[in-house]
Amino acid sequence: MKFCSNCGSGQLEFTIPEGDNHKRFICRNCSVIHYSNPNIVTGCLPVWEDKVLLAKRAIEPRMGYWNIPGGFLENGETVKEGAAREVREEANAEVIIKNMVSLYDIPHINQVYIHFWGELINGEYSIGPESTEVALFTENEIPWKEIAFTSSTFTLKRFFEDRNEGPYSVHFGKFDLERWEKRKGKS
Amino acid sequence: MKFCSNCGSGQLEFTIPEGDNHKRFICRNCSVIHYSNPNIVTGCLPVWEDKVLLAKRAIEPRMGYWNIPGGFLENGETVKEGAAREVREEANAEVIIKNMVSLYDIPHINQVYIHFWGELINGEYSIGPESTEVALFTENEIPWKEIAFTSSTFTLKRFFEDRNEGPYSVHFGKFDLERWEKRKGKS
Repeated sequence: MKFCSNCGSGQLEFTIPEGDNHKRFICRNCSVIHYSNPNIVTGCLPVWEDKVLLAKRAIEPRMGYWNIPGGFLENGETVKEGAAREVREEANAEVIIKNMVSLYDIPHINQVYIHFWGELINGEYSIGPESTEVALFTENEIPWKEIAFTSSTFTLKRFFEDRNEGPYSVHFGKFDLERWEKRKGKS
Repeated sequence: MKFCSNCGSGQLEFTIPEGDNHKRFICRNCSVIHYSNPNIVTGCLPVWEDKVLLAKRAIEPRMGYWNIPGGFLENGETVKEGAAREVREEANAEVIIKNMVSLYDIPHINQVYIHFWGELINGEYSIGPESTEVALFTENEIPWKEIAFTSSTFTLKRFFEDRNEGPYSVHFGKFDLERWEKRKGKS
């Protein structure tokens, strides 16, 4: 943030407002305090018989990698509605959302992933505008090394565990930045 | 949004960008697209023996009404960390977070409530800066007509049902705007 979105002034200060305990952008011209908070990424794993549907990303980041259909929750929709919309946009498919599988925090980029699984209606799907490929995979066929994001790997693992051993429950995960940086340093 | 936070220009247009399907503020001077997405309100119901802890709000909105400790998730923290922080700020108390109770959407104001319940450590608490009163209530003592928000009513009801009948599970709710407007019209 370089200019105040309320008055256009460049006199922004990044400091803790009175009575607060977090730093915010405060406009020294019009006194407005600007808040920035984490975003929700909502998604749904479509399930058909013994298979799950993944979409290969047509866009960056992680273009060419497989992912659970998902994206930023939009204003005016519920988390479940957003998850179903993302399946529609990425895989031209409809789902009946069943259970929430995971809540996965990525605090260093201010994102919270919420993943459901749902029944893929009639097993029908095709390639949406944000995908280059869409396909059904059994558990053994999952391309684990080509999954786009750790949030999807987390959800896929927990989903199959619950489906095989039951019952379904909500799992909590967090991106391990330290481990990721260590791995990156080695490669 | 009246001015572009990137270049300070007032030439903002609220329209659907190419390749998108939602309206965004686009700056006609520097071409930056400004996204706005829902916020997470995270909270935790502290539980001690057969009682739960509520805090009476010292601030608007709904000043003077009882609430489950909660507030906006901050950048850099996990949803559970935010819930524990809110208990600390509102009730000077520490919790061991146990289960997620609810995910409650309020799409017309772009908010998603996530509530947990947690063990109140040592049963200790006091009045925090955002509260005028903090107290423990048994199920029969809950001041149902003085609860600040429908998200808290939803969570309290589901929590007691699960505690009485088991097992604990995650419940999904949504603010019913139509019903609320009808009631408002009548009063």
